[in-house]
Amino acid sequence: MGYTVAIAGATGAVGVEMIKVLEAHKFPIDELRLLASPRSAGKTMRYDGREITVQVLDEDSFTGVDYALFSAGSGITKQFAGACVKAGAVLIDNSSAFRMDDNVPLVVPEVNPDDAFGHQGIIANPNCTTIIMLTVLNPLHRAWGLQRIHAATYQAASGAGQAAMDELAEGTRAYLDGKPFTPQVLPYPYAFNMFAHNSPWMDDEGYCEEELKMRNESRKMLHDDALRVHSTCIRVPVLRTHAEALNVSFRDAPSLKQAYALLADAPGVRVHEDRAANRWPMPTDVSGGEEVVVGRIRVDPTLDNTLDMWVVGDQLLKGAALNAVQIAELLAAQQ
Amino acid sequence: MGYTVAIAGATGAVGVEMIKVLEAHKFPIDELRLLASPRSAGKTMRYDGREITVQVLDEDSFTGVDYALFSAGSGITKQFAGACVKAGAVLIDNSSAFRMDDNVPLVVPEVNPDDAFGHQGIIANPNCTTIIMLTVLNPLHRAWGLQRIHAATYQAASGAGQAAMDELAEGTRAYLDGKPFTPQVLPYPYAFNMFAHNSPWMDDEGYCEEELKMRNESRKMLHDDALRVHSTCIRVPVLRTHAEALNVSFRDAPSLKQAYALLADAPGVRVHEDRAANRWPMPTDVSGGEEVVVGRIRVDPTLDNTLDMWVVGDQLLKGAALNAVQIAELLAAQQ
Repeated sequence: MGYTVAIAGATGAVGVEMIKVLEAHKFPIDELRLLASPRSAGKTMRYDGREITVQVLDEDSFTGVDYALFSAGSGITKQFAGACVKAGAVLIDNSSAFRMDDNVPLVVPEVNPDDAFGHQGIIANPNCTTIIMLTVLNPLHRAWGLQRIHAATYQAASGAGQAAMDELAEGTRAYLDGKPFTPQVLPYPYAFNMFAHNSPWMDDEGYCEEELKMRNESRKMLHDDALRVHSTCIRVPVLRTHAEALNVSFRDAPSLKQAYALLADAPGVRVHEDRAANRWPMPTDVSGGEEVVVGRIRVDPTLDNTLDMWVVGDQLLKGAALNAVQIAELLAAQQ
Repeated sequence: MGYTVAIAGATGAVGVEMIKVLEAHKFPIDELRLLASPRSAGKTMRYDGREITVQVLDEDSFTGVDYALFSAGSGITKQFAGACVKAGAVLIDNSSAFRMDDNVPLVVPEVNPDDAFGHQGIIANPNCTTIIMLTVLNPLHRAWGLQRIHAATYQAASGAGQAAMDELAEGTRAYLDGKPFTPQVLPYPYAFNMFAHNSPWMDDEGYCEEELKMRNESRKMLHDDALRVHSTCIRVPVLRTHAEALNVSFRDAPSLKQAYALLADAPGVRVHEDRAANRWPMPTDVSGGEEVVVGRIRVDPTLDNTLDMWVVGDQLLKGAALNAVQIAELLAAQQ
């Protein structure tokens, strides 16, 4: 006996990965309902050897649905959340629509699984950068108590969707061919270039929205409003894998050896490095993989109780689609 | 009455830029001697409307030379430094051969010009990442006293030479065409990928050589062996412009407004941002330009007396060729 699962935004970069993860994980599904805008409706997509026709997302889409995975943007989510919850489905949302709502748990299953069970119909998937960061930092936090995170990010095109990935590829080809190219999706030329994250700039805070998400969502998931988080979010010309240079200060003195041991045992995390060979995590190690990869863990001798590490994760998987499916799996396992 | 200037490594990526900078700056030159390995000898290069034939670099290359700009790698520099100095030329070296030698000044003209005049025949050009960083940080250091620098770098292919730039372009084209590509110059695939800086890993220090250069060279130039510098150096798929996310703690409390004012007046620095438009420095603003560009200066509320900024500079120019020519200009102006 399986579930009825809906995916809203099924044809987007994250929606496509949600279908793949549900299939790879053999999530028990009786019916998979693929929902999208009228523009994409009628298209067929493959799931588990079958062709499924994409339907128009509307108020009636959720009858009989157990889990509705949304990756359709904040506006669409807000528009259809009421109908979804009223129909009795649990809405697991990849957008930022409800993340900071006090009535909506914000969950990374490796970090704060218990929070999921207090849901009132909606559970939010955190921002990709935050998921990747906290999946790695949580076991260290449990050991020594996180006090401050300083993050410099190296973020991929995929965070801005499939169209941004296509624009990076097409703009790069144009550059190599010496042809003009005008970006349509991202605000600046992306070929062999980089720029501060294009989310809105909050001048009173001195952060862009992406950086505030890292702070506010980390505080919410770790239940610590005093957690200090400072970040610089940069888009680099990489297709689908984020990396983060993390400098992390703890209440208690951390041990480098124990950090490696904790991370070697941490769920969803893989330590991947070869010190002798000067070999550390890279996007090509991680792209298409489920684990967040960490390495190059170092004591920072310039600040008390501080470790430094290099974290790389697939933005579309653990940063989005995988985490949403894991939340559904967490709920399903308790039923 | 002009000088006789030699460029050792004239056909490399930095050598080519040295020729362009000497020409653009109208450095007073009577004779420009272009030197390279036997492989490149006989080639002609243009300077100020003339064709100059590249000669083989050897022990006799420096007769009558006033300034010898070297960008030929540490080994070649060490091999020919004796002959160069003996011939009476001032050797301005872009390699790391003599940077930490107590008898060799390490100079960024905007930072520590006075050090240059104590030379004994050799002056070293600092590491590119360090030049770009200190050009921006020096005026803030003079105001408030640098205590700690935390840097995450976004480094271009050009730091590994023209061959690495070509490899990035060719590997990227192969990726876009779905064709196999085996890197020959850099250790890992570079197309839409990134990796920790490929300089040797010093396991006892927990840093790669590039990161140690940032620490040790900064200490030497600022004459402060207690300066704390911690960095993570990453190569991103950008052709010739480095960027650095700097988090900088001072002895005295810095002011954001004054930081902008100091940097607006700082030699070699350009503040380039439009807060209202969420527009910050990018490589495309800087590539081929002489100034180091800084923006996105913020107070870091998570650490005392700390500012955060985003710095972008052309690796081949201020990071290498331009700084070397500026050192020659500094000496020439005093004669």
